[in-house]
Amino acid sequence: MKNLEICLSPTLLPHYQLEGKIVVVVDIFRATSCMVAGLASGVRRIRPVAALDEARALMAQGYIGAGERDGHHVEGFHIGNSPLSYMDPAYRGCSIATTTTNGTQAIEHSRAARQIVVGAFLNLSAVAQHLAAQPHSAVVVCAGWKGRVNLEDTLFAGALARKLDGTFGTDDDSVLAAQELYANMQEDLFVHLQKSSHYQRLTRLGIKDDIHFCLEIDRFAVVPHLAADGHLVI
Amino acid sequence: MKNLEICLSPTLLPHYQLEGKIVVVVDIFRATSCMVAGLASGVRRIRPVAALDEARALMAQGYIGAGERDGHHVEGFHIGNSPLSYMDPAYRGCSIATTTTNGTQAIEHSRAARQIVVGAFLNLSAVAQHLAAQPHSAVVVCAGWKGRVNLEDTLFAGALARKLDGTFGTDDDSVLAAQELYANMQEDLFVHLQKSSHYQRLTRLGIKDDIHFCLEIDRFAVVPHLAADGHLVI
Repeated sequence: MKNLEICLSPTLLPHYQLEGKIVVVVDIFRATSCMVAGLASGVRRIRPVAALDEARALMAQGYIGAGERDGHHVEGFHIGNSPLSYMDPAYRGCSIATTTTNGTQAIEHSRAARQIVVGAFLNLSAVAQHLAAQPHSAVVVCAGWKGRVNLEDTLFAGALARKLDGTFGTDDDSVLAAQELYANMQEDLFVHLQKSSHYQRLTRLGIKDDIHFCLEIDRFAVVPHLAADGHLVI
Repeated sequence: MKNLEICLSPTLLPHYQLEGKIVVVVDIFRATSCMVAGLASGVRRIRPVAALDEARALMAQGYIGAGERDGHHVEGFHIGNSPLSYMDPAYRGCSIATTTTNGTQAIEHSRAARQIVVGAFLNLSAVAQHLAAQPHSAVVVCAGWKGRVNLEDTLFAGALARKLDGTFGTDDDSVLAAQELYANMQEDLFVHLQKSSHYQRLTRLGIKDDIHFCLEIDRFAVVPHLAADGHLVI
């Protein structure tokens, strides 16, 4: 039986073997929600990079620049880390270079995998169907917040695990914990996440609309994956 | 207000600042349960060491040797990692040198703290009272399993956090997650933990009695702490 594991923080990646497996990277607030929303809305491709300077170099080559650090839009970049701005019709057909506090780093550290796909509540069922249709084991890599475990990424991982119950087995307690959490919180994700550290952080920045949007389930049916040239495409 | 944090694996310790705080180390199956049971039953002091050879050197000085790796009693040591054997009246007044797969390593990596105390379900309320009576913030450090998050240590952390609700605040999502998990699983810890990876591992070793014992709540009222000479005492 295929095996499902959940790595609750990129810092825990050394304890997970990614070779031959599909990695689902998740950063609900907001990097992977942006990627799903953008590519589903016509963005041609998204290049995730770890450093601001790498993104700036790509902007010099004509990429749209998306830069975020600590929740803030970095000066000099076209957009920050709002999924709504990724959906701007002006960016249809464009290439975006993106760098964020947590999400792009999680992708960077998952390169050993057979395939890296991007998950969010926005494309939950599409990701589940993709994994169910493949013969490979899977690891959900939660981006967390600066290395710590966060609630929203854990809840997404639990939601995905529940959808895969029956087609995947597991020997990873993180799967049991995340599934149980999602089962108990799914009725009102927004209310539960109001207590979370990241909600408080984002609310201080005045971006509550983004939070609601990122918690919409199955708005899109795309499964972005990292192509050999380092771009996310659908 | 005092702050409570939960570090779900020793691998995540670089993201937690321990200086000036009280660390509660927990390894329910079974290191910290052994320490609590042994010290509450008359063992004079317990010296946790990371390496088998360190423990052997202390045995040469007259310590009782407790050695466990991967759930197994290491050959040449008096006892393994069963709380029941730590309670043997023969060891009253004795010094024990102990080394285990996860628990003793978690203590080793928490040395930056103001104080290290040992927590288990066996002394849950005593630990909560100790923390409530101190002016310091606290971090629960879960030993996990070889760096991965495990269910039983997370549940203990959640139980402790629930007891401290009101006297401690938090900005750590791990506290929210662990509290919620414990709230939902506390009615029958044993049944929930039967699905966990460590239960499966220990059951294969035929030590179900230990599991039941380690899930007894408040059997003892002691709070072992690490003294300056490197011994756990009460």
